[in-house]
Amino acid sequence: MSAERAERLASVAADEGLDALIVGDLVTPGDSIGPGATANLRWLTAFTGTSGLAVVGAQQRLFLTDFRYVERAEREVGDAFELRVVEQRLLTDLVKVLKGKIGFDDAHTSVQNLRKLEDGVGEGVDLLPAAGLVERLRRQKDADEQRAIAAAATLADEVYDWTLEQGLEGNTEREVTRRAEARMRELGAEPSFPTIVAGGPNGALPHAESSDRSIERGELVVFDMGAIVDGYCSDCTRTFAAGREPDGEAAEAYELVRQAQAKALEGIRAGVSGPDADSVARDLIGAAGHADHFGHGLGHGVGIEVHEAPRLGQRSEDILAEGDVVTVEPGVYLPGRFGIRIEDLVVVTADGYRNLSSLPKELRVVS
Amino acid sequence: MSAERAERLASVAADEGLDALIVGDLVTPGDSIGPGATANLRWLTAFTGTSGLAVVGAQQRLFLTDFRYVERAEREVGDAFELRVVEQRLLTDLVKVLKGKIGFDDAHTSVQNLRKLEDGVGEGVDLLPAAGLVERLRRQKDADEQRAIAAAATLADEVYDWTLEQGLEGNTEREVTRRAEARMRELGAEPSFPTIVAGGPNGALPHAESSDRSIERGELVVFDMGAIVDGYCSDCTRTFAAGREPDGEAAEAYELVRQAQAKALEGIRAGVSGPDADSVARDLIGAAGHADHFGHGLGHGVGIEVHEAPRLGQRSEDILAEGDVVTVEPGVYLPGRFGIRIEDLVVVTADGYRNLSSLPKELRVVS
Repeated sequence: MSAERAERLASVAADEGLDALIVGDLVTPGDSIGPGATANLRWLTAFTGTSGLAVVGAQQRLFLTDFRYVERAEREVGDAFELRVVEQRLLTDLVKVLKGKIGFDDAHTSVQNLRKLEDGVGEGVDLLPAAGLVERLRRQKDADEQRAIAAAATLADEVYDWTLEQGLEGNTEREVTRRAEARMRELGAEPSFPTIVAGGPNGALPHAESSDRSIERGELVVFDMGAIVDGYCSDCTRTFAAGREPDGEAAEAYELVRQAQAKALEGIRAGVSGPDADSVARDLIGAAGHADHFGHGLGHGVGIEVHEAPRLGQRSEDILAEGDVVTVEPGVYLPGRFGIRIEDLVVVTADGYRNLSSLPKELRVVS
Repeated sequence: MSAERAERLASVAADEGLDALIVGDLVTPGDSIGPGATANLRWLTAFTGTSGLAVVGAQQRLFLTDFRYVERAEREVGDAFELRVVEQRLLTDLVKVLKGKIGFDDAHTSVQNLRKLEDGVGEGVDLLPAAGLVERLRRQKDADEQRAIAAAATLADEVYDWTLEQGLEGNTEREVTRRAEARMRELGAEPSFPTIVAGGPNGALPHAESSDRSIERGELVVFDMGAIVDGYCSDCTRTFAAGREPDGEAAEAYELVRQAQAKALEGIRAGVSGPDADSVARDLIGAAGHADHFGHGLGHGVGIEVHEAPRLGQRSEDILAEGDVVTVEPGVYLPGRFGIRIEDLVVVTADGYRNLSSLPKELRVVS
């Protein structure tokens, strides 16, 4: 798999007029060893350690790491790359292997490290900014990647079921969060981001997080959670009612979001633009008088990172493509009162989508 | 507190010939809003959100954040800084407030973001690399910081006690790890790094991590764990014997490390250099024929980050100073057989140290 990805990346780099591309985190100052891994490096090489760099071009497939990670690199990276074990710092050895026109990831290279690269490379080496090339390839998930994301989504769904059985009403948001994350870890996964359990007015905050407030009877509770399985993330949100049906206005708003989310799903397929995908839900919510209460985009890509390309929103320039894995998550937030968000994770297909989230979306009352 | 720190930082910036310094993470590309917080920003402003930047100079005390974090910034940052709420991206608004000679953190600014800064600033603005200024001030911990670190150390000690009561022998390393981290979270703290439980030969790996191997009777188990309390880290390692006393060579090596660690502690005081502090333990371990089996430095600073200045090791250029909080952690690692490390966390004082780790260091047999 690494060999095939390296091949594709080398081809993209060649198209950009580069002899080779540096892949990895060139931000961390790393006083003893050097830079760490990134999602890009993980995707390209399967390396899970915290210190590694790759150089990929038509003539080069190098993987640099330090003595601490030799065994891991041999196991994970395999023979798709020639392994180089560095003595002290990755950067010091990196400059020695660079030749010709070299692309570096200017979004993940610090100014300080670029200066070190420039000072270290030999005559005739050109360092050229080339951010985003790996990210472009990472968008389309292959079958293995889709399986990992689906497994993460299924595991998170199990955590939802288990956690709701323990009850919401009368617990603090943080207690519910801790319980859910502990259960997730018992099942062998880590959260893909800090779980959000936000009841009543807290659910309406633009950047809600679990607090020490107690969940009261009749409140809506926004519950946003994801897991990581085999290095791939899931992301799912449901909104529950604590203890009893909510009042009429909240129930009505819930139904609006549920319909908007269902409609938005119908609009997902390869070829649809980010703004168009977003508009389906936004128009429905706007028509109900809540245009100002849906203050974020419809969704985002999910993979090795929980937020990655593409974006679904009014300012997006992305076009959905087969193999994109994206969230579909409209919401309505009434400041000081309540918030509602319903989020599925889907694989984009030629004529629609495959939904990786299995939890029901009718309003559920949880005691 | 923020006001006093801002005052000191402005003074350091002025000494460097700067009109103001940008503090915060200028790495994250941040497609919708912008850069995230860093340890430096947290230290300076107490801000715990993920999107903020500060500008500090003799004439300026600005804090920029976006709409999601306004309430949090008001609560945490307080009136030591003038609050600016940006519309879309922090960088876009940042360039408008810069005047004169501006220091930026070239270790935490991406090449891409520096270009955006350069493109955006007005006439007469000079952008000058100025990494490390905040880190220098962060070294000396004040009374509040020492209290937070001590509380984290005490909490981690409690987690050790509780976890050991559940037993080691016959459990997998990962089970013990999960149990310890779950307990830590029950007590309201997060791990300051992924807990390491490494038995037998796994404890000798240069970058050991908890695995699915079962801990066998008679093995030595390296247990390295820390907590975060009020944003400050602790770090502690102990090595235990599972089930029964280890064999003679392991027991002897343990005693060597115990003595080396005790001796190294005696050498800790303000004014001692990083290499000299390291040599005390290294000489003793070397004299016992294990020079090649202690492959890392004696210790490192701990604070908002679990690894920060100063360094205690042969290549360090640091001199210990009052208020430094550092680890003292010699080890002996015999490849394929076992590892031993004993680590305390101490506050450096004028004439010695104050130990924040309370766990005994005699070899303890845990069933």
